[in-house]
Amino acid sequence: MTFKISPLAPRKIKKIFPINGINVSSTHCGLKKNNKQDLVLIKLDSPGEMLGLFTNSKTPGEPILWNKKIHKFGKVSVILINSGNANVFNGKAGESSLLKIVNEISNKLKVPKKHVYIASTGVIGEPLDEKKIIRQIPYLISNLDNNSDSWLKAAEAIMTTDTFPKTHSENFHKKRNIIINGIAKGSGMIAPNMATMLAFIFTNLDFKREDFREKFREIINKTFNSITVDGDTSTSDMVLFFSVNNSNNSTKLNNEERKKFFSHLENLTSKLAEYIVKDGEGASKFLKIKIKGAKSIENAKEIGKSIANSPLFKTAMSGSDSNWGRIIMAVGKSRAIVDSEKLTLKFGKFFILQKGKKLNLTDINLINKYLKQSEIEITVDLNLGKSEWSTWTCDFTKEYISINADYRS
Amino acid sequence: MTFKISPLAPRKIKKIFPINGINVSSTHCGLKKNNKQDLVLIKLDSPGEMLGLFTNSKTPGEPILWNKKIHKFGKVSVILINSGNANVFNGKAGESSLLKIVNEISNKLKVPKKHVYIASTGVIGEPLDEKKIIRQIPYLISNLDNNSDSWLKAAEAIMTTDTFPKTHSENFHKKRNIIINGIAKGSGMIAPNMATMLAFIFTNLDFKREDFREKFREIINKTFNSITVDGDTSTSDMVLFFSVNNSNNSTKLNNEERKKFFSHLENLTSKLAEYIVKDGEGASKFLKIKIKGAKSIENAKEIGKSIANSPLFKTAMSGSDSNWGRIIMAVGKSRAIVDSEKLTLKFGKFFILQKGKKLNLTDINLINKYLKQSEIEITVDLNLGKSEWSTWTCDFTKEYISINADYRS
Repeated sequence: MTFKISPLAPRKIKKIFPINGINVSSTHCGLKKNNKQDLVLIKLDSPGEMLGLFTNSKTPGEPILWNKKIHKFGKVSVILINSGNANVFNGKAGESSLLKIVNEISNKLKVPKKHVYIASTGVIGEPLDEKKIIRQIPYLISNLDNNSDSWLKAAEAIMTTDTFPKTHSENFHKKRNIIINGIAKGSGMIAPNMATMLAFIFTNLDFKREDFREKFREIINKTFNSITVDGDTSTSDMVLFFSVNNSNNSTKLNNEERKKFFSHLENLTSKLAEYIVKDGEGASKFLKIKIKGAKSIENAKEIGKSIANSPLFKTAMSGSDSNWGRIIMAVGKSRAIVDSEKLTLKFGKFFILQKGKKLNLTDINLINKYLKQSEIEITVDLNLGKSEWSTWTCDFTKEYISINADYRS
Repeated sequence: MTFKISPLAPRKIKKIFPINGINVSSTHCGLKKNNKQDLVLIKLDSPGEMLGLFTNSKTPGEPILWNKKIHKFGKVSVILINSGNANVFNGKAGESSLLKIVNEISNKLKVPKKHVYIASTGVIGEPLDEKKIIRQIPYLISNLDNNSDSWLKAAEAIMTTDTFPKTHSENFHKKRNIIINGIAKGSGMIAPNMATMLAFIFTNLDFKREDFREKFREIINKTFNSITVDGDTSTSDMVLFFSVNNSNNSTKLNNEERKKFFSHLENLTSKLAEYIVKDGEGASKFLKIKIKGAKSIENAKEIGKSIANSPLFKTAMSGSDSNWGRIIMAVGKSRAIVDSEKLTLKFGKFFILQKGKKLNLTDINLINKYLKQSEIEITVDLNLGKSEWSTWTCDFTKEYISINADYRS
């Protein structure tokens, strides 16, 4: 089943800057139909430092269980990603399939098993035929390459209901030529708590995980964990962030460089998160919901999520309907602290409510015109405190229903 | 805008049994377009005992604020219900409109204001022109009547996106001829925590509120608070339950009679809750989700709600797709205690998982046939404890999007 490309897809896909010491190859192994690419191998020349974040789901897939187990060792040599089957809820058979794949990679590439990460995405609860994957490992190894095109192909091969590949690259620090690259997938089953997605981010900066861990988590929370397409959380999400062992770039960053690095990293995760929302199943609009003036960050998140996951709000947006009552409803149903008489609400730059008072909407035509745009910003100021949080989502359309009532069938 | 009648609508609408001492009338006052009925007056000959439950929304409508204020007095003489405007978020003007209406009713009918309940349902945040309502009060008073048809008309006049009127009647205890009647509305913005709906239940049994309060709350939790259409909670929900002052039926019930009364009351609220789900916006299927073997009732509710509100589950059901992975995902994303290896899952009588093990689905054709039916039962047994809870919902269809992207425009 092929979906038509999201109307919100970026016009140009940013090229991945190749990094020495890391290679990638993709192929078709038969998990997806119609000879579509569905298997990716990423190989580091020597073990790199690694930081991972994984889904909170209580029914996680085998790759999540495995990666969490080896994550304590903190090193990565290989990442193998397949699409078309998530290897979730396959019991002992699922575990055994995964172990056979890890063994094979470990043997063929002469790397310790604890350096081999696996990611799978696709249907839940269908047995994974590991032979399909194992059969292709020699081909993948012999085709490892380090150019932009191979990376783009990899981004394509990890897609499921995605309609465009998601990549981003940052490049800065002229002297040291620091690069951060990322590829990601995600389109449905997307909700805060690690949105349903896979993201792989790599850099030529030789970071120390203990040093980066806290900031990494903070950035992921602000970006990947602040998007929602349908409120559903997948069993298979992960973000893997790793450095290519690189003696040229192993000098510790000074404070300013460090700040700059994280700002570029945030820019990258933010871009990839935006692409995931823009490729949200059936999406026709990208919606940025900013909650300000909350008593706490938790309150701001809670309200943002309540609005972003409300089917009534999302359908109103799809109809370019200024029915702001549905936003009030969603604010009201959250568990956060709210005072109706202090609420300020804006569509873009247009005030709808100011401290609980409705304004005379003299510019209703301009507002309606604004709501017809493909990118809409909604600001709710609670006027109760200083905390704020942004949540991104997309609208709810008939295409969402089509995609999800028919997918797999 | 008129919607086509839900395919799940009951074939026959149960007639309301008239009760002496209570009268009703309806009319069109101009809040709805096309001369549709939008105003209902219910009048008790003498003040009746009253129990109410109201929405948990933090941005409640004026009627909720008013009713909660007078609820402590525990008596009711009049209920006025309008559809077409919810009188929510209208600030001082909204409060003033409500008070003018209450005053007018109090004067014209010679009843204390604290016995006058108001309910409003419709668009949020549009000024309510109380003159439209006040102008029709004399007409409503002169047309008060006590036959089944007037009650059916009232059930019709409180509809918003509903496609059929919702009424139910119970009659038992030959000697004392106890009657319980109910009318309700609700179709969208329906989620646990008082589903978005209005329900008015009345009986000729002269109950004492203190005596019935706890059991009433329990029954509402099991029925109206256990349904969801879209996970959205309205600003205007309420259930009002009242008795017609009736000296013939004021003798206290004995234990057995009391049990019987509550079982009939539960039957009635359960029927009305079912109708609301069956009239869920765009619904094509009625879905009963039973969670068993949970560690606690809270866990069972949490999982039921997580499944029932999952757009991916709801769209799979609309496509008659046996993609049970989406149920596993929804179980996994809830905060409840779960052990994947103990999960049992059934579609109707068909086992899909038994204690974490997938079964060989030899009867997949029968399962697919079952999923094409308009009423589907899903059982998840966590096999961890003894608590259970049932949640009802409907599927998610393209019609849901149509209704909500176009409503109001």
